[in-house]
Amino acid sequence: MRHFLSTEDWSRPDLQAMIDRARLFRDSPAGDALKGKSVALMFFNPSLRTRSSFDIGVHQLGGHAVVLDARGQTWPVEIEEGAVMDGEPEEHVKEAARVLSRYVDLIAIRCFPKFQDWTAEREDPLIMAYARHATVPVINMETIVHPCQELALMMALQDRLGDVRGKDFLLTWVPHPKPLNTAVANSALLIASKFGMNVRLLIPDEVYRLDERYMSAAERFCAEAGSRLTVTTDPEEGYSGAHAVYGKSWGALPFYGNWDAEAPFRAKGAGFMIDDAKMALTDAGVVSHCLPMRRNVKIADSVVDSDAFLGIEEAENRLHVQKAIMERLIADAGQ
Amino acid sequence: MRHFLSTEDWSRPDLQAMIDRARLFRDSPAGDALKGKSVALMFFNPSLRTRSSFDIGVHQLGGHAVVLDARGQTWPVEIEEGAVMDGEPEEHVKEAARVLSRYVDLIAIRCFPKFQDWTAEREDPLIMAYARHATVPVINMETIVHPCQELALMMALQDRLGDVRGKDFLLTWVPHPKPLNTAVANSALLIASKFGMNVRLLIPDEVYRLDERYMSAAERFCAEAGSRLTVTTDPEEGYSGAHAVYGKSWGALPFYGNWDAEAPFRAKGAGFMIDDAKMALTDAGVVSHCLPMRRNVKIADSVVDSDAFLGIEEAENRLHVQKAIMERLIADAGQ
Amino acid sequence: MRHFLSTEDWSRPDLQAMIDRARLFRDSPAGDALKGKSVALMFFNPSLRTRSSFDIGVHQLGGHAVVLDARGQTWPVEIEEGAVMDGEPEEHVKEAARVLSRYVDLIAIRCFPKFQDWTAEREDPLIMAYARHATVPVINMETIVHPCQELALMMALQDRLGDVRGKDFLLTWVPHPKPLNTAVANSALLIASKFGMNVRLLIPDEVYRLDERYMSAAERFCAEAGSRLTVTTDPEEGYSGAHAVYGKSWGALPFYGNWDAEAPFRAKGAGFMIDDAKMALTDAGVVSHCLPMRRNVKIADSVVDSDAFLGIEEAENRLHVQKAIMERLIADAGQ
Repeated sequence: MRHFLSTEDWSRPDLQAMIDRARLFRDSPAGDALKGKSVALMFFNPSLRTRSSFDIGVHQLGGHAVVLDARGQTWPVEIEEGAVMDGEPEEHVKEAARVLSRYVDLIAIRCFPKFQDWTAEREDPLIMAYARHATVPVINMETIVHPCQELALMMALQDRLGDVRGKDFLLTWVPHPKPLNTAVANSALLIASKFGMNVRLLIPDEVYRLDERYMSAAERFCAEAGSRLTVTTDPEEGYSGAHAVYGKSWGALPFYGNWDAEAPFRAKGAGFMIDDAKMALTDAGVVSHCLPMRRNVKIADSVVDSDAFLGIEEAENRLHVQKAIMERLIADAGQ
Repeated sequence: MRHFLSTEDWSRPDLQAMIDRARLFRDSPAGDALKGKSVALMFFNPSLRTRSSFDIGVHQLGGHAVVLDARGQTWPVEIEEGAVMDGEPEEHVKEAARVLSRYVDLIAIRCFPKFQDWTAEREDPLIMAYARHATVPVINMETIVHPCQELALMMALQDRLGDVRGKDFLLTWVPHPKPLNTAVANSALLIASKFGMNVRLLIPDEVYRLDERYMSAAERFCAEAGSRLTVTTDPEEGYSGAHAVYGKSWGALPFYGNWDAEAPFRAKGAGFMIDDAKMALTDAGVVSHCLPMRRNVKIADSVVDSDAFLGIEEAENRLHVQKAIMERLIADAGQ
Repeated sequence: MRHFLSTEDWSRPDLQAMIDRARLFRDSPAGDALKGKSVALMFFNPSLRTRSSFDIGVHQLGGHAVVLDARGQTWPVEIEEGAVMDGEPEEHVKEAARVLSRYVDLIAIRCFPKFQDWTAEREDPLIMAYARHATVPVINMETIVHPCQELALMMALQDRLGDVRGKDFLLTWVPHPKPLNTAVANSALLIASKFGMNVRLLIPDEVYRLDERYMSAAERFCAEAGSRLTVTTDPEEGYSGAHAVYGKSWGALPFYGNWDAEAPFRAKGAGFMIDDAKMALTDAGVVSHCLPMRRNVKIADSVVDSDAFLGIEEAENRLHVQKAIMERLIADAGQ
């Protein structure tokens, strides 16, 4: 039995096989991998798109999804071993995960970090606790990485660019009124490097470097593939000759939970919106952003409305890749 | 491809065909119009009955409903073209509608007006924006009109009265502690006039006239059918000889968003509850009210518990007519 | 047509038949009792486990569950006959129950007491009103009793102990930071006595006696079975020789809605956590607690993690017994 917590745990051929299967689902949606089976979708944070695509995908595979809305309770369960539970949590993850495993065949979880203490939160403690105690496979619907989004992105990139190996992938920080989770940025780094792209990280200042865990994983993947990871604060350098541009905004980790002090660094990226002038520097590059996406703040209308934009395809692919992931996990679990 | 946004957009024969189909569904609930298909039910406002009847109806047609609860976010998406999205909305309706259209085959939306600015809200901007950008049919589950309720009411009236043409339909304002949405009142005007009834609007004061858009549509429908639309503030005139009485409370549009000033006009309707004495003036009339309904405030217990009350049938009919609507839209979309 | 509101209304053979059927469902989950049927799951209070197990159970029986979340509205409907509804409730239970009965084939309800006035709340007014006006069977998903949990517990006890008649069942109050609902404690009393166990109630003080309605029912059931109901405040007396220990915390009824004054009595139970020393006094007893359960406050880790703990089985059994209950009610309703 395997979980789907991060693409770090899966080989490129395994991930490619899921993407290939997803393309078959795009043409022929029905399947029976979940016939007579149930899937719990646990949301500790809001979701419309992830919820819809998982719910529909489960149904198309013949199964039944139970949506469990745990919003408002950031830590609804105790996860510490041996805790004397006289605080807020009424239940330990040991019981929650074991009982849910008696009811369902897969558990999918969305739990964003709390934006309080990155040292603790970079360990992704809640989903890891569920994975430790569940007796059925656990799927990550976005925590500090977003592996389902990664496969959806790579599927869209391959559809547009063909073989992506050796192509230039720019991950650019873009403006946003608030500091956001690094999950999608971490994930973009991971998947582009794992699939052998040259990865450029464009940030307004060095404080926006992503966590060392993901930077070093991406370096290792690039080294294995013979490609390069580069970091720049110069938009011209970042965009020049790129084949794919991916926008994302995030909060600088040195100021995690103490965001006021980040403001002057954030101001350095005021001009980082993806627009026609920057796209003109690319090699007829495609461009995307996970959704939701603020128009004319992160990406200009003219770019979103151009043929280069593949964000709608990427979002649609979520449905297809998630079905492939569930089918694979059920098969591995021998159920 | 057609949307079901308002009965204004549909001919009487089309609407009658849906009601006739609904009667067949009442006798034989199963269908396959939604086999292998999914429907998004988006609620920007609470609902138990609409949610239940749509969810069950989709299932009975072989499909899968995804309930998306957007409560608490009155305008969760940006709807202005070209907006620089540096405010609250994280997403533009263009992306929301296009992506949802990739996942589902129908989108049903409930979004009540915000009670702030009728000049803007009478354009029904949110559902209109979804309809503009969605690539699948959109169904109105109540905005500033409530077309599903209209068909359920007309089905119940025909079941009781036979051919309704030329019969007298009284829409009477009734008391309620708070100013309410005009949607169901607008809808009662539209459907009764479209089906050729003589329509009487009974209100405590001229300030309770409904929006000109609906008043003039009803006048036009009556003219086409050879029936009459009349407005009165005299209960005796309103009830005398009526064949059907429909109760509804609403806020006076001249005081929209500024309700304190409406109080003295509202006080004029203190005696407008539907009771036995008023019903005795009718021509053995039937009576109804959409649900929820405050007993002994809007309608007296003795009236609700009499055989003349058809509100339970009307509520049941919601299930049947909505299935007919969905079946029709899917057929028209050629899916 | 019968409701499933409390095990008080059902004979031991009837309940045993449901447990026996549940064991068959454990081995072979699929059924068709709900084919083409719908079930409303109404939650006036939060739930993850009850919601999951009912939703999945309905699906496994071929039906469709509609989850209606009425949280935040403790009394969303008026239940008084003849009320002039000028307060908060927008709807009378008469309409709510009748309309829902037109849409679905079963109505399951969770509504906890409001912790305001036990004299009124001990009558379980909301679910009783739904049962009075619904035209389909109503199932109790926890109000002031929790009959589904009772069957799940008895099934687990029989699986471990075989015939439970004449065996010693200890219901012990355990610590918790807050005063809780007595429902599960009432239910443990009812089911253990109905199935002929000797029942011991261990409480920190006489103020923790359960409501006379349940105390006298348990006495009557014990008398019929030739077993005994005893009450003690001495843990050694309670645990000595017990075959089964069931932990639960609850608020003392004399202080209902006025909890500050309960604190000194609650302090007397500070040492009532179920731990190894107490379990050593039993006759190799099994131990359980409904979930959620605070580790190291109500039950020590070492007890929960021992083979004696059957709480996970009990939780799993919820799925199985609820399917047996629904199948029985549908059969009785002749649908």
